[in-house]
Amino acid sequence: MTVRVGVIGAGMIGQDHIRRLTDVVTAATVTAVTDIDASRAADVAATVGATALPTGADLIVSPEVDAVLVTSWGPTHAEHVLAAVAAGKPVFCEKPLATTAEDCLRIVEAECAYGRRLVQVGFMRRFDTGYRQMKEVLSSGSLGTPLIVHCAHRNPTVPESYTSEMAAQDTAVHEIDVLRWLLDDEIATAQVITPRATGRRFAHLKDPQIMYFDTANGVRIDLEVFVNCQYGYDIQCEAVGESGLVRLPDPASVGIRTAGGHGTAVLQDWKRRFEDAFDSEFREWIASVEAGAEATGPSAWDGYAATVITDAAVRSLESDGTVVTVDMKPRPALYGGTA
Amino acid sequence: MTVRVGVIGAGMIGQDHIRRLTDVVTAATVTAVTDIDASRAADVAATVGATALPTGADLIVSPEVDAVLVTSWGPTHAEHVLAAVAAGKPVFCEKPLATTAEDCLRIVEAECAYGRRLVQVGFMRRFDTGYRQMKEVLSSGSLGTPLIVHCAHRNPTVPESYTSEMAAQDTAVHEIDVLRWLLDDEIATAQVITPRATGRRFAHLKDPQIMYFDTANGVRIDLEVFVNCQYGYDIQCEAVGESGLVRLPDPASVGIRTAGGHGTAVLQDWKRRFEDAFDSEFREWIASVEAGAEATGPSAWDGYAATVITDAAVRSLESDGTVVTVDMKPRPALYGGTA
Amino acid sequence: MTVRVGVIGAGMIGQDHIRRLTDVVTAATVTAVTDIDASRAADVAATVGATALPTGADLIVSPEVDAVLVTSWGPTHAEHVLAAVAAGKPVFCEKPLATTAEDCLRIVEAECAYGRRLVQVGFMRRFDTGYRQMKEVLSSGSLGTPLIVHCAHRNPTVPESYTSEMAAQDTAVHEIDVLRWLLDDEIATAQVITPRATGRRFAHLKDPQIMYFDTANGVRIDLEVFVNCQYGYDIQCEAVGESGLVRLPDPASVGIRTAGGHGTAVLQDWKRRFEDAFDSEFREWIASVEAGAEATGPSAWDGYAATVITDAAVRSLESDGTVVTVDMKPRPALYGGTA
Amino acid sequence: MTVRVGVIGAGMIGQDHIRRLTDVVTAATVTAVTDIDASRAADVAATVGATALPTGADLIVSPEVDAVLVTSWGPTHAEHVLAAVAAGKPVFCEKPLATTAEDCLRIVEAECAYGRRLVQVGFMRRFDTGYRQMKEVLSSGSLGTPLIVHCAHRNPTVPESYTSEMAAQDTAVHEIDVLRWLLDDEIATAQVITPRATGRRFAHLKDPQIMYFDTANGVRIDLEVFVNCQYGYDIQCEAVGESGLVRLPDPASVGIRTAGGHGTAVLQDWKRRFEDAFDSEFREWIASVEAGAEATGPSAWDGYAATVITDAAVRSLESDGTVVTVDMKPRPALYGGTA
Repeated sequence: MTVRVGVIGAGMIGQDHIRRLTDVVTAATVTAVTDIDASRAADVAATVGATALPTGADLIVSPEVDAVLVTSWGPTHAEHVLAAVAAGKPVFCEKPLATTAEDCLRIVEAECAYGRRLVQVGFMRRFDTGYRQMKEVLSSGSLGTPLIVHCAHRNPTVPESYTSEMAAQDTAVHEIDVLRWLLDDEIATAQVITPRATGRRFAHLKDPQIMYFDTANGVRIDLEVFVNCQYGYDIQCEAVGESGLVRLPDPASVGIRTAGGHGTAVLQDWKRRFEDAFDSEFREWIASVEAGAEATGPSAWDGYAATVITDAAVRSLESDGTVVTVDMKPRPALYGGTA
Repeated sequence: MTVRVGVIGAGMIGQDHIRRLTDVVTAATVTAVTDIDASRAADVAATVGATALPTGADLIVSPEVDAVLVTSWGPTHAEHVLAAVAAGKPVFCEKPLATTAEDCLRIVEAECAYGRRLVQVGFMRRFDTGYRQMKEVLSSGSLGTPLIVHCAHRNPTVPESYTSEMAAQDTAVHEIDVLRWLLDDEIATAQVITPRATGRRFAHLKDPQIMYFDTANGVRIDLEVFVNCQYGYDIQCEAVGESGLVRLPDPASVGIRTAGGHGTAVLQDWKRRFEDAFDSEFREWIASVEAGAEATGPSAWDGYAATVITDAAVRSLESDGTVVTVDMKPRPALYGGTA
Repeated sequence: MTVRVGVIGAGMIGQDHIRRLTDVVTAATVTAVTDIDASRAADVAATVGATALPTGADLIVSPEVDAVLVTSWGPTHAEHVLAAVAAGKPVFCEKPLATTAEDCLRIVEAECAYGRRLVQVGFMRRFDTGYRQMKEVLSSGSLGTPLIVHCAHRNPTVPESYTSEMAAQDTAVHEIDVLRWLLDDEIATAQVITPRATGRRFAHLKDPQIMYFDTANGVRIDLEVFVNCQYGYDIQCEAVGESGLVRLPDPASVGIRTAGGHGTAVLQDWKRRFEDAFDSEFREWIASVEAGAEATGPSAWDGYAATVITDAAVRSLESDGTVVTVDMKPRPALYGGTA
Repeated sequence: MTVRVGVIGAGMIGQDHIRRLTDVVTAATVTAVTDIDASRAADVAATVGATALPTGADLIVSPEVDAVLVTSWGPTHAEHVLAAVAAGKPVFCEKPLATTAEDCLRIVEAECAYGRRLVQVGFMRRFDTGYRQMKEVLSSGSLGTPLIVHCAHRNPTVPESYTSEMAAQDTAVHEIDVLRWLLDDEIATAQVITPRATGRRFAHLKDPQIMYFDTANGVRIDLEVFVNCQYGYDIQCEAVGESGLVRLPDPASVGIRTAGGHGTAVLQDWKRRFEDAFDSEFREWIASVEAGAEATGPSAWDGYAATVITDAAVRSLESDGTVVTVDMKPRPALYGGTA
């Protein structure tokens, strides 16, 4: 069986995922596309032989759509995801699940009412080989209980439209999700510190930012977010346990010795860094849809948690580095909780 | 358009490639399977909804087959590849192209007579990211002219059926192909030395072996083949140019510090080492078939060259390390030569 | 000229430095030794042909002593250093300069009154090749202004006598000194956080601890102090600037591939980690004494600063992680300040 | 007791060792200096308060000289070493022990007649921490029997006076000595191959050269000698055993990330690479002299072996890469042999 996917939002990310579903994921085919810009929807649909539909609502209920991919503008995510849940169709929503914790919670509640996981959120790092190796090592217990995690998330530069809040919402949100999963633990507090700012940024931006998170189990996380580091896209993660540590590898790259130095290239582009993870993410999602199984990737609850935690980080940033308690609802049984 | 592939030989490698064409390469579908064991052909065909056919000849001429994949027993390769060329169909042949230089040459001549490249040989390393980065660096000229290449090809262990000749024919053959491509140069001499043998081998086997190759341009290659090295599957390659060197990276893997040491795992399995390369190899092959273009991967000529060079290496092994001149025909124009 | 050194305190560290002055530093000779335990002083003095003297006061004024080394019990440091300054003799004092900020300040004032630097404090990391390379890179400006420093200081285990305060006083104090020097900046605040404690510690001890320091210039420092990390003695330091970062190297050690892994040993012993730094520290100190020059190593002011900053860290630890402002006097002109 | 050293030859290397004996090795003092250029001898002697003597013969018999250091022009080594042996004084001779195998043998015979080791040859790599770690690992047996060793010896450039023979005599000789020691094995054959030459050399020079050595136990050694590699002074050594390998580490150096790359510096200067080894070499030599013990460093026999093996390599070079058998006398009992 081939899974027929309808795509809501045909912008850059939507097009990239359509290419992935078409060229990389053998078990999927894109059958319908919609976009706020109807001509763009038509153009993109034509490239893969899909039907352009007027609205997300039309697409979700289309009998030619088995599963829905939401890659539209963030503020519209909640509406489409809720509609997909109402239609009982599997839905993959690019991050964020919704732009407010309230909307995330509405989705969680709708899904709980439906009684079965339909929603997967696009946190791709859980599908990265390096993080998966880290999780395997941590889960094996060979390093004892985790105590501390050191992270860095660096971009060469960001455009002027990137705001100080986006350091949490768009950048750190990836670490927030992957660390909750890696540690199998919940984040309880958030704090954002702004050290000396780099001169190589737009004036309105606080960069770098350092974020601290404490988990329910007492693990301390520090995360350097530095989005104008100039030298490359560089993701670092080191988890320290009672009897050892495990560190995310740098991507493999040829070593060169010339002109007095030994060197390897640092990637410039985040897409190449997690390209394989994106591929695995969609392959596994489509496989679960094909099998009629519940998604095992990041859930609506994970999307809710990420939003609540990034909200807390933003509040800390806005209040000069106060430690902000993450105020999360009890976790419903559908997501392994007791509520 | 989906490329319909017929597969000749449904053993372990055939099945792995069928899985790849089905699950990984979106633009391909396996429509026909044949095997010397008809029941195996039937079983394997059934798993992917393909037709089981009695013989390779039947499969090649089937109107449901656009392109042929030969993964049968080595001695049968030549017959099937020649038939595919005769039928004017693109054919991907797992290494070796043929078990004798004479048979390889017959294929080369047939293809030249046909006037267009139809044959691709299964040397997957040209599709490995690390080797491709090496080629990019070498081709850029930033390190000057290449002068020396140091290589190692190590396996944890080999079964008793592995013979001393297979060190050249099955193991070194990968370096032979990838180095010809990497250097854009031809191998002119071969020599095989047997140092002290490891105690951890079957008694009939000469292991390790060290192979030396000189290229037409005077580049010196040394290659350690050690197929019972115990510790892992480890591929090393370092090319030294006039002003620097470039080295193949080890696969990325988490670093672990525990119990007095810092460590990373070494792969045990060659399939995982080149899994991505295999995927790219087939994706690119299918894309070229789909586009009606000539294959750009390893050609029949490359398959011929590899066989002639491994023959020379085996003759050196059998004559106690004599330097053996590689006796190759002039390269036809179809393959960029002048003959 | 050979510098004649008198040593106050013949315990383990004193004996190690006596060995160093005797066997490693060619331009020095130990001529006098004293210790609270007179028989130990006699025994140790005998091994190097020195005279055992009854008290530090005797030793300092001895005409056979050109320079004084203080390696006695911490609470006695101030008394001996002040006496050496009063005698106008160069004095090398193992850390801490004094156990209270007040006593440190008395030494600073005495030295300022004397009008010339006589005191050097035993912070050996400034003499480590790796840190010196870091300083060279940072000072060159090639990475722009420093913004953030990430550090870790890990020991395999500590004895039961090691207290929670010692994490700042005995362990972090090395980073405190070396970072002030590396950044050429002053530490303005200190905060100590205690994440989940390791199970592998004595119950009274808070371990690990994470320390944060902000400098006058706004650089943010995080320092993991983990003194029961089990796996080895491991010192990490990474300074992030506006256009790049520089990282302290791990000590060079053979790489070994065996049994499925690639590994290098991690040192277990802090003495071996900084052995070369200790040697350079004493060679350079003796050279400055021999030349009649002022010491260029860590000054009395640096000893004072380290004590004030560790006091602030201990106060933060005792007040559950409050951010504590470092209350330091203005820096006198003798130490490059304006007071 | 301080060992009083007389130095024959006050050129660059002699001066460097005089500095070392004066500033680094506490237990030694240079008391006499001679040189073919009497005024240079006088100048250098004056810097360390030593006496300038007219000839090596005078120096060797001087009652103020306990031990002799020979750093004169190679062709004069044999004469001075023989005189020192005749005088029954410990003598450290910079490589080569003598410029001909015959002269080396005369020294060996003289020492055997004397009945006790007096001679140490200046092969400093045996004192390098990395090579010592390699030896420890190999001797432990944890990697099984050694089978293969891969080496590279690269210099940025050499002056016009450097000849093709010097690749063996001056450059490879270090590997020849350290590998005999590392493997505790004797070299039985030598072969020198000249691949494509680099364009960045003086026209008379064959560069790079690749040398192969087989040991008595069947270990195969390959050694790339490339003295105009441009990028740095780079020493590589990897020993492959039956169940794993061990690799010489690169010198520790800060890692820098900037401008799209991660890099570390490669040393340019061989002196810095082995500076610590030189220091240890002389410290241990002086300690053995002081203790009245036999030297444990490279012996006259090792000096003889190195000369015979480099002679074989030069003969191979001169005969277009013929494999040349190393024709060595039986090893006398004084050096652990049976002759």
